[in-house]
Amino acid sequence: MDEISRTGAQPFVIGFFEHMNPNGITGDTWRQPANTGSDYLDLEYWMRLAKRLDEANADFLFFADSYGNPAVDGVMPDDSIRLANHIPVADPFAVIPAIFAVTEHLPVVVTSSTIFEEPYANARRYATLDHISKGRIGWNVVTSAAAKSAADLFGRELVAHDDRYDRADDYLEVSYRLFEGSWEHDAVVKDRATATYADPAQVHAIDYTGPYFRSKGVFSVEPSPQRMPFVFQAGSSGRGRRFAATHAECVFLQATSPEKDAEAVADIRRLATEQGRDGDAIRIIVGITVIIGVTEQDARQKYDEFCSFHSEEIAAAQFSHYSGINLLELDPDLPIPPGNDELSRSNVQRFDGYTVREVLNELKTRGVRGIIAVGTAAEVADHMEDYAAATGVDGFLMETYTNPGTYDEILDLLLPELRTRGRAPLPYTTKTLRERFQGAGHPFLDDSHPGAQHRVGPK
Amino acid sequence: MDEISRTGAQPFVIGFFEHMNPNGITGDTWRQPANTGSDYLDLEYWMRLAKRLDEANADFLFFADSYGNPAVDGVMPDDSIRLANHIPVADPFAVIPAIFAVTEHLPVVVTSSTIFEEPYANARRYATLDHISKGRIGWNVVTSAAAKSAADLFGRELVAHDDRYDRADDYLEVSYRLFEGSWEHDAVVKDRATATYADPAQVHAIDYTGPYFRSKGVFSVEPSPQRMPFVFQAGSSGRGRRFAATHAECVFLQATSPEKDAEAVADIRRLATEQGRDGDAIRIIVGITVIIGVTEQDARQKYDEFCSFHSEEIAAAQFSHYSGINLLELDPDLPIPPGNDELSRSNVQRFDGYTVREVLNELKTRGVRGIIAVGTAAEVADHMEDYAAATGVDGFLMETYTNPGTYDEILDLLLPELRTRGRAPLPYTTKTLRERFQGAGHPFLDDSHPGAQHRVGPK
Repeated sequence: MDEISRTGAQPFVIGFFEHMNPNGITGDTWRQPANTGSDYLDLEYWMRLAKRLDEANADFLFFADSYGNPAVDGVMPDDSIRLANHIPVADPFAVIPAIFAVTEHLPVVVTSSTIFEEPYANARRYATLDHISKGRIGWNVVTSAAAKSAADLFGRELVAHDDRYDRADDYLEVSYRLFEGSWEHDAVVKDRATATYADPAQVHAIDYTGPYFRSKGVFSVEPSPQRMPFVFQAGSSGRGRRFAATHAECVFLQATSPEKDAEAVADIRRLATEQGRDGDAIRIIVGITVIIGVTEQDARQKYDEFCSFHSEEIAAAQFSHYSGINLLELDPDLPIPPGNDELSRSNVQRFDGYTVREVLNELKTRGVRGIIAVGTAAEVADHMEDYAAATGVDGFLMETYTNPGTYDEILDLLLPELRTRGRAPLPYTTKTLRERFQGAGHPFLDDSHPGAQHRVGPK
Repeated sequence: MDEISRTGAQPFVIGFFEHMNPNGITGDTWRQPANTGSDYLDLEYWMRLAKRLDEANADFLFFADSYGNPAVDGVMPDDSIRLANHIPVADPFAVIPAIFAVTEHLPVVVTSSTIFEEPYANARRYATLDHISKGRIGWNVVTSAAAKSAADLFGRELVAHDDRYDRADDYLEVSYRLFEGSWEHDAVVKDRATATYADPAQVHAIDYTGPYFRSKGVFSVEPSPQRMPFVFQAGSSGRGRRFAATHAECVFLQATSPEKDAEAVADIRRLATEQGRDGDAIRIIVGITVIIGVTEQDARQKYDEFCSFHSEEIAAAQFSHYSGINLLELDPDLPIPPGNDELSRSNVQRFDGYTVREVLNELKTRGVRGIIAVGTAAEVADHMEDYAAATGVDGFLMETYTNPGTYDEILDLLLPELRTRGRAPLPYTTKTLRERFQGAGHPFLDDSHPGAQHRVGPK
């Protein structure tokens, strides 16, 4: 307690990154002997994990998601299928309600794409999840990576990068009107005596026509605890940062270096403030992989073992999936070329000055993970505190390797260590995800958020 | 037991019709004193109900669904909002995984539209639900009623009725290829020793180009227990019947009269047989509302009470929603006009020869329900047996009024009565929904089904 008051340390935001596939984020870790990741299609697998995170006061469980398969020049490598590299991938929405059924407090953030989902159907889905979870849902808004394979599966043309953000702006504009602008918050009265389920005077048809989307009518879902779900976004590029600064309540930053991340954090906060938002209120987190041992040597050994589950072909396929560049066709001694478009460039920029061989080596050993911290719980906690101090990030998205392995390390070793430093998530005292970030009594979009202006009814 | 062997009676197919709104199918029953329907946004509400149905060996829980709000000449009546007439409506997919989490056997059939959902996203969602339920999901394929309000909410133009079925045919063609034509059934081996999650030689890219939809690539979900989910369809019109005869494994018929239903049953079976399918293997069910009392008088009294929860305005709004015709503007003594399009005509045809006033009265008292059977359990069971004998239907979709009220009547009074007649659903002996209909060991589309020809791998 002394230490907490002495340092004035704030608890870190701690979320857990998951993906509905056998491998989590990278590497064919499903075949690691003690890993249960290949049970990802079993409801019990997710319910068990969620209960552990609920008990640990985790800030949220985060489901990444995307359509499309990793391909190099349009062809999926046999190794991707053999090693389950981003294929198979299933639908996280098919497990989330079961997670809410067995947890009391744990929020869930789930990804949905402004390219591939219909705004009205998407809003109805999140609003219902917000109801059944009593306000525990978050929406990770993605504008969808330039994966031609996803467009092909949907029978669509690729959308250009900047167009994608314009489209996403419009998508959120129509979403704000559905979530905030149709029902006044107290419209539902459920009064049997007067035969009034809802007061018609407090229910309004929206009528929106934007450059990409239109919607006209009454939103079909009655007002949910948070209304607009809590907004996550991962925008690293210039246009992506502007988008995040406009709409996001929590930004997931792809970790590069402390210097670059510090610049990105400051830039996003400045951009938000310029728009009249409270930039400091935006939570910014980075991805981190932790490998914890009783000794540093023990941790190193584990890490080497995990690294043995990567291959050059998989690394190249993943890189190609995100950048459109086939590293295996390039001279290994030359510097990597710039990306073909803005997204590709933003994925490539962290390798400025690397040769092709160095990129392959780096990706082979760490995949697309953010920070990798290997050591004892105290060493890893030091690393996290140093990184936060150097960059201004509020917390971390834990990118795990194995289940239960990495979860045991984090929940049983790292969180107790962080707790002694006042850095572990505190016991839940609020009901909704947004209140977890904004404080009790503030379940709705902050008044300075652009979505709030579409709210109808008494302020 | 004697009686069963004497009559050779088959158990009826018994499903339960639900809707994610406070009222179930019709009438503002939420305000009926003992009804808990307005708890429909509480996960516990659905889990409790599902456990009861699981214990009762119900063949399935069925979620109706649609986008769009009941409107008369484009305007939603205040009464619709006040009385919760088809508004609010939430997303059933947000509760189904929790239902699967707490039941062992109960299948769930859920509606998805070939107009409003993307084929690829839809396939991924159902395939994942089939996995996490171990084969208990069914897809009620709807081509979406001509509700302009839904098109407006989605910012779309209305699709003409026959176009809708052509589009739905194409939607199923691309779906068959995704579910059946990408992964061979034994492709996933999860062999740690050889580092093989799946055998690339057994995973294939599809390449489909139809008149409305295209898709190219590998389906992202590994093979689920049923592959193509069990197919439900409600097609009453001429084109709808052809569609059902081509694709459906279970047809939900809108009950009209025994004569007309008998004709429809025979016609659907004949159409299916003409296409090389086993017409008799298609299960055909009708909607039924049962009001059961200890005495007939007791039941009548309950029924009158339920009828008091209907109003003419609500009846007119619902009729307009399904037919596009505003009855309140017409001379009550004239016969109702024919519908404006085929769907509208098919919804109107059961009222051939009625005046506008008669239609309003009928709708006011019974809404859009199918058969209404009021009486003791024995009388209702008689009615069901007579109806099945007269029409050839295989069973019933129970359209309830209240929860727990109607459920108590059905589960505690009607099913025991049906059991003595060999007509109640038998204890579950199979795992998947399709096996419940086709028999153990037959979880996949029948070979004569058009979707089966797209199956890849050894036959």
